[in-house]
Amino acid sequence: MQAQFKTHPHRRYNILTGEWVLVSPHRTKRPWQGETEAYVKKDMITYDRECYLCPTNTRINGEVNPDYKSTYVFKNDFGALLEDTPLFEYKEGLLLAEGEKGISKVICFSQNHSLTIPDMEIADLVYVVETWQNEFTELGNTKDINYVQIFENKGAIMGCSNPHPHGQVWAQHSIPTEVEKKTNSQKNYLEKTGSGLLQDYIEQELNEDIRVISQNKSFVTLIPFWAVWPYEAMIVPKRKMANILGLTDKEKVDFAEQLKILTQKYDALFDTSFPYSSGIHQAPTDGSYYKEWHWHMSFYPPLLRSATVKKFMVGYEMFAMAQRDITAESAAEKLKSL
Amino acid sequence: MQAQFKTHPHRRYNILTGEWVLVSPHRTKRPWQGETEAYVKKDMITYDRECYLCPTNTRINGEVNPDYKSTYVFKNDFGALLEDTPLFEYKEGLLLAEGEKGISKVICFSQNHSLTIPDMEIADLVYVVETWQNEFTELGNTKDINYVQIFENKGAIMGCSNPHPHGQVWAQHSIPTEVEKKTNSQKNYLEKTGSGLLQDYIEQELNEDIRVISQNKSFVTLIPFWAVWPYEAMIVPKRKMANILGLTDKEKVDFAEQLKILTQKYDALFDTSFPYSSGIHQAPTDGSYYKEWHWHMSFYPPLLRSATVKKFMVGYEMFAMAQRDITAESAAEKLKSL
Ligand SMILES: O=P(O)(O)O[C@H]1O[C@H](CO)[C@@H](O)[C@H](O)[C@H]1O
Ligand SMILES: O=P(O)(O)O[C@H]1O[C@H](CO)[C@@H](O)[C@H](O)[C@H]1O
Repeated sequence: MQAQFKTHPHRRYNILTGEWVLVSPHRTKRPWQGETEAYVKKDMITYDRECYLCPTNTRINGEVNPDYKSTYVFKNDFGALLEDTPLFEYKEGLLLAEGEKGISKVICFSQNHSLTIPDMEIADLVYVVETWQNEFTELGNTKDINYVQIFENKGAIMGCSNPHPHGQVWAQHSIPTEVEKKTNSQKNYLEKTGSGLLQDYIEQELNEDIRVISQNKSFVTLIPFWAVWPYEAMIVPKRKMANILGLTDKEKVDFAEQLKILTQKYDALFDTSFPYSSGIHQAPTDGSYYKEWHWHMSFYPPLLRSATVKKFMVGYEMFAMAQRDITAESAAEKLKSL
Repeated sequence: MQAQFKTHPHRRYNILTGEWVLVSPHRTKRPWQGETEAYVKKDMITYDRECYLCPTNTRINGEVNPDYKSTYVFKNDFGALLEDTPLFEYKEGLLLAEGEKGISKVICFSQNHSLTIPDMEIADLVYVVETWQNEFTELGNTKDINYVQIFENKGAIMGCSNPHPHGQVWAQHSIPTEVEKKTNSQKNYLEKTGSGLLQDYIEQELNEDIRVISQNKSFVTLIPFWAVWPYEAMIVPKRKMANILGLTDKEKVDFAEQLKILTQKYDALFDTSFPYSSGIHQAPTDGSYYKEWHWHMSFYPPLLRSATVKKFMVGYEMFAMAQRDITAESAAEKLKSL
């Protein structure tokens, strides 16, 4: 069967979202004459007086960052979600809308302007994981907040305007689309089989050992069978946990290690500071018991052939379905070998 | 209620896909220090000897384009879908895949290298519409082809590597994700109410007259209430038709007119050759009778503030849900005024 995957266009099913991706393995040979991205040089200075995320600097709204020494969290000065929002409902014929209350925060991963996740020490990445846990706890316990999305946009190509290592957390009243899909799939599977969807999936991947990039005692890093982005990857805890609060001290270190290994491989792949959006999907915080949920972190990196040629998710992908050129297996092979 | 929409973050429901979009109207004020796009100058030459789409030129695979005088269609030399593909099925534990047979074609809109849709004569745009009809008929009648996606990627920012006016058509065996969603919504609505979803929707929009940009006897062009992209728009026939084959001669002209008006407004908006992906959603061609389907053409343009600043659909949007800053109403007001 692997031979079919290597030669013939086919579609693959995403067990988490219930959607398909078109894979066109023969298409890597097409020449590229289109738009290219700029090469990215890493900033080498540990402190930049122009950076609004560096310690002691003043942000655009006049607030001054403290002289922080590891992670630092503050409310996004231009947040898309606001706390002071009425939960109004609007229904007029076929038009349906609702007030969306929420909070948007920025999380600096380090005081050091020049670092990115692959350059950070494991111990410092554990601080980042603990900061995510703190935010998840605080926001998850906030009235009217039913879901907490932790994510990072890395690189100018991903709409990130500042190289200072940072991510974001947007927490909100409604359950977002992607999370609802994953909740439904995991719930249906648990009801049908009595076991965890991702638990069974990673067991299968560990047995087949074709798409696994790296693992340790508590985590596995792999290219999912249904990956959409060329080098899309997932870091999954081997043990089923609804959210990141369940991590033991040892597991935090193991998670940090996989974070570092994956992002180091990414940087090595095209010899560049590898851009991506990453995000942690976990159970909603609406007070229900989400027995089916197995949290995981995904990476959606846009680069396809080199540091300057990305995959465009445009016409066909917007109107029909996701499409990729290289297979998940060949992406895994490449990343594994680095 | 319009006041709430202007000031408070809220989410809006897409009646066609069943998904929501987060609208953050207060967020337009955030400063932009991130990546910007290059200004695009239109090519002024009617024939470019380096262009693989111009008449009489040789393509990369050695084929020579005829000396065509209006539209010209050929099989994509690097198509993502291929005719000669086995419809294999693969199911191994939690992994599910299927062979995807299909055809990818390129449609040149004009022999004139320097034109884009807004510059073309209505009569020439009618040729384009008729070419789409011919392709829909031919591909839709092909064995194993159950859906025909017509689309255009315009501009380097949309992954388009050649300014010569052209679009594509990808036809395939399976029903793509987006089409399936729209089929289900329209079907449910018809079953529940006995009337057409888009028919009722455009009636409401024409009455409210807030998001309508332009109309003629047979078509309306509007910003849908649930628009995701900043200046996303839809051209909808006023009469319910499952696909573009139902167009009368008069309707073809009316459609061509709306195509021209919308794209002219786009070009005027930021004084640039406005990039977008556009696509026609219509009923599948699997032989079933899709009574619920009302075809329409949508435009997903990425520009947000100017010719060089686009909307990034990244972290939050990839992991949670679509998000936009300006409201559909303000986008409509701007486009209408041009
Ligand atoms: O086929 P083209 O124009 O070479 O390629 C472009 O459109 C395709 C269909 O939307 C996408 O899959 C590609 O990523 C994009 O670069
Ligand atoms: O909040 P930022 O970093 O200014 O903005 C970036 O991330 C957001 C969340 O993914 C997106 O909505 C924006 O389009 C993007 O530019």
